[in-house]
This record gives sequence, structure tokens and C-alpha cells, in this order.
Amino acid sequence: MQSQQSLQTRISEAFSGTKFNQEPLQLYQPIEYTLDMGGKRLRPLLVLMSCDIFGGDIEKAVYPAMGVEIFHNFTLLHDDIMDNAPLRRGNTTVHQKWDANTAILSGDTMFVIAYEYVAKTDPALLPEVLDLFNDTARKVCEGQQYDMNFETQGDVSIPDYMLMIRLKTAVLIACSLKLGAILANASQADADKIYEFGIELGLAFQLQDDFLDAFGETSKFGKAIGGDIATNKKTYLFLKAFELAKGDTLIQLTNFYSDKEIGIPQKTEGILHIYRKLKIDEITRVEIEYHHEKAMGILKSFQFNPEITNKLIALMQEMLGRER
Amino acid sequence: MQSQQSLQTRISEAFSGTKFNQEPLQLYQPIEYTLDMGGKRLRPLLVLMSCDIFGGDIEKAVYPAMGVEIFHNFTLLHDDIMDNAPLRRGNTTVHQKWDANTAILSGDTMFVIAYEYVAKTDPALLPEVLDLFNDTARKVCEGQQYDMNFETQGDVSIPDYMLMIRLKTAVLIACSLKLGAILANASQADADKIYEFGIELGLAFQLQDDFLDAFGETSKFGKAIGGDIATNKKTYLFLKAFELAKGDTLIQLTNFYSDKEIGIPQKTEGILHIYRKLKIDEITRVEIEYHHEKAMGILKSFQFNPEITNKLIALMQEMLGRER
Repeated sequence: MQSQQSLQTRISEAFSGTKFNQEPLQLYQPIEYTLDMGGKRLRPLLVLMSCDIFGGDIEKAVYPAMGVEIFHNFTLLHDDIMDNAPLRRGNTTVHQKWDANTAILSGDTMFVIAYEYVAKTDPALLPEVLDLFNDTARKVCEGQQYDMNFETQGDVSIPDYMLMIRLKTAVLIACSLKLGAILANASQADADKIYEFGIELGLAFQLQDDFLDAFGETSKFGKAIGGDIATNKKTYLFLKAFELAKGDTLIQLTNFYSDKEIGIPQKTEGILHIYRKLKIDEITRVEIEYHHEKAMGILKSFQFNPEITNKLIALMQEMLGRER
Repeated sequence: MQSQQSLQTRISEAFSGTKFNQEPLQLYQPIEYTLDMGGKRLRPLLVLMSCDIFGGDIEKAVYPAMGVEIFHNFTLLHDDIMDNAPLRRGNTTVHQKWDANTAILSGDTMFVIAYEYVAKTDPALLPEVLDLFNDTARKVCEGQQYDMNFETQGDVSIPDYMLMIRLKTAVLIACSLKLGAILANASQADADKIYEFGIELGLAFQLQDDFLDAFGETSKFGKAIGGDIATNKKTYLFLKAFELAKGDTLIQLTNFYSDKEIGIPQKTEGILHIYRKLKIDEITRVEIEYHHEKAMGILKSFQFNPEITNKLIALMQEMLGRER
């Protein structure tokens, strides 16, 4: 069993030892730029950790793990065009630093590179690996489409939202874990079960992200509080508040979200006040806990040895931003 | 051996029998719309024909052939955004009918679907099939990047141009033929040779397209003459003319391309006059013939039976717009 630190080091080495720059530079420089931004490299860590847990040789999982990370970064690159985002991880986004055409085509090329890395695997496992990756990639696209639809859709329900984050976020977490299991020749049952664990973990992870955007501390969260509120993003908190608000509270909530005369600080403060009055913070915590508990239940059903179980629990705690 | 007509019918049936529409409709309707536009379905024809020629079961090649066509249509969809093209095959382009974000994400999803179809193959052949497809997809992206670079690059040479059309156009023709050969379990040597045949055919095909844009008859060519001239597109003809023009002719040529006061009909007429004076038409024909002859030489080296050879020659003639 390898420590999380040693797996993270292995991933960092793999990326820092790979040059993505080649001719034509106009195509590959934005790819190098994107992959040099770093990020937590969470998904490849999940691939290697899962492979290790199921007794596989992590060296055989390094390239596919990189493929998942390259795919994830490709989706961020194209999402940033669609969202017209100026910054990513504190750096100017590709479509701003170059232009939208460069971002489209460099993204497409990253997608191919992702497939190339995912394909660097035991040929006997390739059909299963490729099926999983295709299924995941398609679902992530569907999730992004639902997320974009929500911007103009008036009647988004909580189940709609949960489906969206399942597709956009949770399936790639789940895919990473299942990919590691497949590469370790785990049983089909175990591979499917670690996928379900990943779904619940991924849902909790996204809900926690929503929660921290409203109620987190900037120093720990690493980004400004209230970004979702400022942009009227239909998060779990937003949707739950509109579900529960009645009478004057509903009128106030609607006003805060629709009145363009209100400044952002006042709007943020006003909405947070309503969120607290409606106990949206507690309700969201309960929902996070629900998925966390489901993940824990699946984890316990594996009957791993305690070392493995504790390692996975520690990872969950870290992903969900809890004290360890 | 199946007739070209029967292979084309099989491809049409396969597409008309497949519905790409599903939820979320905002994502899948543009895909259905794009694939319903039709087109010549040349690339899947090449897959099936090659599979048939090498003694394979074409039914096992239908899905991968569809994958190649879906990939081709994905590249057109994204290229149309980058070129800001209003029309494709006489229909409004996706980014115009919907918007750029829809075109980006629907395109990404088509790319995944292309991989899904390509992967519907004998698992034993999958590693080779996927390697070929990845290599091709990456090269097509590189070709599109060079093509975009040329718009602002002052010193594009004929070799630069030939590399660009090899990557952007010829490798997918070559990939289609090689894919059919792999699926028929042809020898590695034969698969590689039919790929080289496809490269030469693809180069001749693109040069012929350049030629017809300037010297074709609208009725046969199917699109307006002079589109490349009107848009200052750096085609083989353009680059050859600038390579050969001297003195007053060079000044005239430069003026026609740079003077925004000159109307399109006058510009087209003036440039065609210079092209003829410099014998660009004949020079281009010679270049096309050079690649056509190389393709013929490779074809003859196969020592196919006459029925197969004649069928491939007929296809070449058709692709190169010659009388049969």
C-alpha cells in the first residue's frame, strides 16, 4: 500500500516529465499552458489509489490516470469558453489569453490526447476501459448541457439539479475509481461498487462546494465567497430556498435575485440572511451527510482491511473539506 | 464483391435507422440535424469498400464506418464555428441556427459518439483500430490549426500547404481505407499500403477541389466558382501564383488580393486571368496527376484481381471529378 503523498508525487512527476509542446505551437502551447496550471490532480489520484487498493500495479495505471486528468482539463477549457470565464486557477483562461478558436481546437486536441493516454493500457482491458471512458465523457457533456439549460430555465427542481451534478461532476469521480479497479483486475462487482461509492462521494463533493460558496471561510475555501450568489447560479442552496420560501420571504428572495440596482455585497448579505432564516445551511449539511453516509455504507460493505478503509475515509474527509 | 451502390445503400440505411435524438434535446437535436444533412458519405464508403476488397465481412465494419463519418461531421461543425461559416451543405450551420456554445458542446458530444461507434469492433482489433483513429483525429486537428495559421501567415510555402492538406484532408481518407483493411484482417503491409494509397488520393482530391473552385463549371462542381479567390484563401493556386509571379504581374496580383475597393467579380476575373497567364491551371493539373499516378502505382503493386482494381480506379475517377 502506498501513501497518498507518494501517489500524488508519482502523478506530479508524470506530468512534469511530459512535454505537450510540439508543432504547430499555436495548437499545443495552450495545451501545455492548461496542463501546467496544475490543480489538485484529484482524479488521477483516485485512479492510482483505487488501483493500489485492489492490488494492482500503479505503474500500469499512470497513463490512464493522466488521460482522465487531461480529459477533465479539456472539459474545463471548453466550459470556460461557454461560461465566458476570465480566470481559471488564478490564470487567464485560454480563450482570453489567445482566442475562442484556439480554445476550441486546443480543447479538441486535448480530448484526443486524453484518449491516447487512456488507451495506453493492457490490450485485454481496453474494451472495458474505453466503454467506461466513452460513457463518462458523454455524461459529462450532458451534465454541462443541463447546467447551461438551467441558466434560462425557470422551473429547475432539486431532482433536476441532482441529475445535473451527477452527470457533470460525480460520474468522473466514479469513473476514476472504477478505472483504477479495472486496471487492477478487480472483480466486476467490486468495480461497480467502487463506482457507486464514487457517485455518492462526487455528489457530496459538489454539494459541499455549493455550501462553501455561501457559508465557507475564504481562507479555507480558496476562492471568494458568494460567487454563486453574485451570478444567480442555480445551486442546491438557491433551489432549496425557492422551494421553501413563502410570502414576504419569497418576495424578498425574488427581489434580491432580480433587482439589478442592488449592489453585490448587499445582495449577498440579504440572500445569506434568508438562507439562514430558511435553514438552508442545515438542510444542505443534511443532504451532504446523506450522500456521505451512503458512501460510507458502500465502503464498509467491501470489508477492506482497516488500513485501506481508513485511507479512503481520510480521502473523503479531505475532499469534503473536513478536519481530519 | 459488392457494388459501390450496394455499399452506399448499406451506409444510408445505417444512418437512417439510427436516431441520435435523446435527452437533453438541446444537446442532441443539433447532432441529429448535422447528421441528417447527409453529404456524400464518402469516408464510410471507403471503409466498407476496403473491408470488402480485403475479404472482410462488411457488416462488421458498418459501425466503425459510421464512427468515421460522425467524426468527419464533428470536425465540420467545429470548423464552421472557427470559420464563422453561415452555410453547410446548403443548410444553416449549427452555430448560426443555435449558438456557438451549442455548437461547441454538441460537437464535443459527437466526438464521443464517434469513439463509441469506432469502438464497436472485434475486441482483438480494438487496440490497432483505436491507435489509428487517435492518430488520425490528432492530425486532423493539427491540419485545421495550420489552415487557420495560414490566414495571417505571410510566408506560406507550397510544402507548408501540402503538409496542411495531408493532415486536414488526406489522413482521414487514408484512415478510412486502412480501417476497412484492419477490420478485414488484412496483413499489416497491405493495411499500410492502402493508407499510402489513401494519402495520395486525398492529396489529389483536395488539389482538385482547389482547382475546381477556380476553373470548374458551377453545374458540375455544385458550389459557386471563385469562393476561394473572394476570401483570399491560400490555396495551391494562390501560393503557386505568388511563387511564379514577377514584376508587373506580381504587382497586379498583390493589388487584386489587397485592394478592398475592387468588386468580387472584377477581382475574380482579374486573378483568373493572371492564373491562366502563369499557367497555374496546367501546373495544378500536373500536380494532381502526379499524386494520381502515385496512387495508381500503389494500386497496381497490390496485384488485386481486375475487378477490384477497376472498382478502385472508378472510385478514384469519381472522387477526382473525371468522366468515367
